[in-house]
Amino acid sequence: MMLNLTLIGIGTGNPEHLTLQAIRAMNRQDLILIPHKGEGKADLAGLRRTICNEVVTNTATRIVEFELPVRNEATADYRMRVDDWHDAIAAAWQGAMAQHPDAQKVALLVWGDPSLYDSTLRIAARLDRAPVLEVIPGITSLHALTAAHAIPVNDIGEPFVVTTGRRLRDEGWPPGVDIAVIMLDAGGAFETLNPTGIDIWWAAYVGMPEQIIRAGKLADIATEITALRAEARARHGWIMDIYILRRKVP
Amino acid sequence: MMLNLTLIGIGTGNPEHLTLQAIRAMNRQDLILIPHKGEGKADLAGLRRTICNEVVTNTATRIVEFELPVRNEATADYRMRVDDWHDAIAAAWQGAMAQHPDAQKVALLVWGDPSLYDSTLRIAARLDRAPVLEVIPGITSLHALTAAHAIPVNDIGEPFVVTTGRRLRDEGWPPGVDIAVIMLDAGGAFETLNPTGIDIWWAAYVGMPEQIIRAGKLADIATEITALRAEARARHGWIMDIYILRRKVP
Repeated sequence: MMLNLTLIGIGTGNPEHLTLQAIRAMNRQDLILIPHKGEGKADLAGLRRTICNEVVTNTATRIVEFELPVRNEATADYRMRVDDWHDAIAAAWQGAMAQHPDAQKVALLVWGDPSLYDSTLRIAARLDRAPVLEVIPGITSLHALTAAHAIPVNDIGEPFVVTTGRRLRDEGWPPGVDIAVIMLDAGGAFETLNPTGIDIWWAAYVGMPEQIIRAGKLADIATEITALRAEARARHGWIMDIYILRRKVP
Repeated sequence: MMLNLTLIGIGTGNPEHLTLQAIRAMNRQDLILIPHKGEGKADLAGLRRTICNEVVTNTATRIVEFELPVRNEATADYRMRVDDWHDAIAAAWQGAMAQHPDAQKVALLVWGDPSLYDSTLRIAARLDRAPVLEVIPGITSLHALTAAHAIPVNDIGEPFVVTTGRRLRDEGWPPGVDIAVIMLDAGGAFETLNPTGIDIWWAAYVGMPEQIIRAGKLADIATEITALRAEARARHGWIMDIYILRRKVP
């Protein structure tokens, strides 16, 4: 039996980020798999359930949760740690699907967009039987950030880079660009830069009711953002943030 | 009287790219302005009208077209040519709004997302009276491209650059990255690269019924893409395409 697997971008936590295409795709499914991370983590399982409750009108569509495996932090090598984790998640999908052997159309709801710093496509490639894949694009945290600040990401005709907090911390300002979008920052990578001439547009929980945004000269607000971030993380038990840095060219 | 201006990302031509947030925002407006480009150009006015017809249920919302000024190609300096053009478009918005002086809530429907290689925010900054701005994020051509190919844009933890065809042509492969997203290519900038070790994922009219996609080794399919592009452009009278280049690291 052929498995049709649909990866559906759902945006960044605002249920109204859903596209008509995403809603239609959800209502075509036999099974929607929702990962459950355990207490105290980003409560995205709850958000995914809310989204399903709001828009899935097909009574034949089953919404099924599965336990998301945790990464084995004892594995020293980063790439191997991620590889093993993705294998474990693929096995968890298969375990959940095995309980619904008649389900031919299965979907996962992907935070943001399935193409941007997300592993769902790579996990799908690890399934024992290769699925027929379909991807529904979603609103990304980058565009939720720019919308919240009402700014363009690029200057006219100019390039920008999208990179990670880890890279910014390890390698400094990326070469060849004056604008950098920083994702997956475990915290404060911007503090490692000389802030002179750099502006920042920052947001946490972008698109969600908890959204916090700040913008200004990095020299003026880096400390404030770091404090806000720590406080919000402690209060919610988790945080997701993203920011744009723009270097003024003299 | 305060002007509330909402810039609404509508995705890339598939009316189902609309988000629930975009639809709600459209139905809050007194006036939605639709630019008309004249015959033989990208028929996006028609698409915007179709979208309005399908989702605007508020009978008080007026849908009004205005003639989009053309760029004066006689102005030699690129930046000045664009500056003058943006001034002319701001004046055209104001002309259209002047015919509806009671309209306090005015929206424009922006192709893709208002933050990504789009001028609407910059034009809004040129209005005589500064509006209260709101931006609704949209599905970008980048994510419509990755969805069409069912691929991630980035490798795990790796950066990518978003740049223009002009820059790729003038400056070669961008520094510091192995993945580049190329937008606004007037045609075939990829042909200026040594294709060895480079893969390409290309799409034209992405998200639209006319969509064409191709992927493969640049050395194998560059010629085919160039021919396809020329043929499609001649047939439709216009083209929009986008592609991802990925360089294999030895």
